[in-house]
Amino acid sequence: MLGIFDSGIGGLTVVKELLHRHESAGFVYLGDTARTPYGNKSPETIRRYAVEDARFLVEKGATTILVACNTVSAIAMDQLRETFPATKFFEVITPAVSAAVGKKIGVIGTRATIGSGVYERQLKARDAAIQVISQACPLFVPLVEENWMHKSETKRIARTYLEPIRRQQVDSLILGCTHYPLMLDAIKSSIQKRVKIVDAPSALLDIVEKEAAHELASGDQQYFFTDPSAATDAIASRWLERTVNGIRAELK
Amino acid sequence: MLGIFDSGIGGLTVVKELLHRHESAGFVYLGDTARTPYGNKSPETIRRYAVEDARFLVEKGATTILVACNTVSAIAMDQLRETFPATKFFEVITPAVSAAVGKKIGVIGTRATIGSGVYERQLKARDAAIQVISQACPLFVPLVEENWMHKSETKRIARTYLEPIRRQQVDSLILGCTHYPLMLDAIKSSIQKRVKIVDAPSALLDIVEKEAAHELASGDQQYFFTDPSAATDAIASRWLERTVNGIRAELK
Repeated sequence: MLGIFDSGIGGLTVVKELLHRHESAGFVYLGDTARTPYGNKSPETIRRYAVEDARFLVEKGATTILVACNTVSAIAMDQLRETFPATKFFEVITPAVSAAVGKKIGVIGTRATIGSGVYERQLKARDAAIQVISQACPLFVPLVEENWMHKSETKRIARTYLEPIRRQQVDSLILGCTHYPLMLDAIKSSIQKRVKIVDAPSALLDIVEKEAAHELASGDQQYFFTDPSAATDAIASRWLERTVNGIRAELK
Repeated sequence: MLGIFDSGIGGLTVVKELLHRHESAGFVYLGDTARTPYGNKSPETIRRYAVEDARFLVEKGATTILVACNTVSAIAMDQLRETFPATKFFEVITPAVSAAVGKKIGVIGTRATIGSGVYERQLKARDAAIQVISQACPLFVPLVEENWMHKSETKRIARTYLEPIRRQQVDSLILGCTHYPLMLDAIKSSIQKRVKIVDAPSALLDIVEKEAAHELASGDQQYFFTDPSAATDAIASRWLERTVNGIRAELK
């Protein structure tokens, strides 16, 4: 069975892509809303949280886990694979790196993701001539979670963050955070039209369909949150266009 | 000894006011940076976190605790006083309510604080004729923590949030979050000049000096964080204008 986790609700963009392709696929989702966000916390704390999240999913029966959080994907994969050797993990960075085109590539993400340098390393490993322009956009996550995606203030903040990338005339822009597809309009209006926007959920699902097709069987769809609330259910239901009733998860 | 805690670094505005008045006062500060912010989490989760924070300070020897977090002050004081009957607690709401003047009072805070209705209840208990205009400003905390206080985007966001309060021509505006004194400029430029701005740290210290003067003796000054980092030390040192070396706190 598929397990999917994120620091909060951003990872639901992966669920949305999964349901768009396989409407009845069974999965368990975990959002660590009691400790969200992860992106501005230290690597040590992020690794500890990631192991606790994965342990919950493994105990619920997950055999394949989609790490729907770029911060965890950037910082905690070695730790996860060592701690749970029998579980197959997919993360959101490698698929996005493969999907980017051109010699000049922009990357945006949380401070922890950008600070890890993981996109730059992976892109340069693919082709040392690739030039990478990275920018942390730490206010994007709260803006999305406040549902401010379409406000003029948000467009201005996006323009401020993306200005260095726009000036460099990149070929692709990797959205290095699962929240960011939800503010695609503000991002698109801050960058040249010809730039290829790479969003991780879609790139990730392409790979899961190839390498773990057996996990896409029909089954129960369960949503767990460490801090479930009516507000979280409302946002999740609106994003996924179906009723979500979050269940309380106790981590250990 | 004084203990002071907050969900993160916002409560350092209380430390700043304390040090401004009593430079050598001894205290233990705890910032729960591993789980910050609290303001958009559920009441049940906030109460659990508050008890764990206070337990840490009590075990460090605190006999008087300043709850330097409006969200906890709004939601968890009964629970704290029941769990630690031998400890004297001061919170940040009652002092601010006492310091506000006029018949029309604006209140801004996190979603949890405003949703609790605590300011409105306390102001109306003082005088039923007082009209209260409340507004949650959930983006202010991330804007302060990103050090975006003086950016034009922040001024625009402040103007958007404060517009309903400005229109009502209030007499006082209570800053119902310990982060907000740090963005006083953006707040002042969004509201009429004649409005009395009430900031909790100053109102709180007035009361502590009256009711717990014996706790203001000289002593060690210790800063604990659940997720200490160089970034947190840098922000804390800049705000307090002295070197802060955060120590790791393990809560239970």
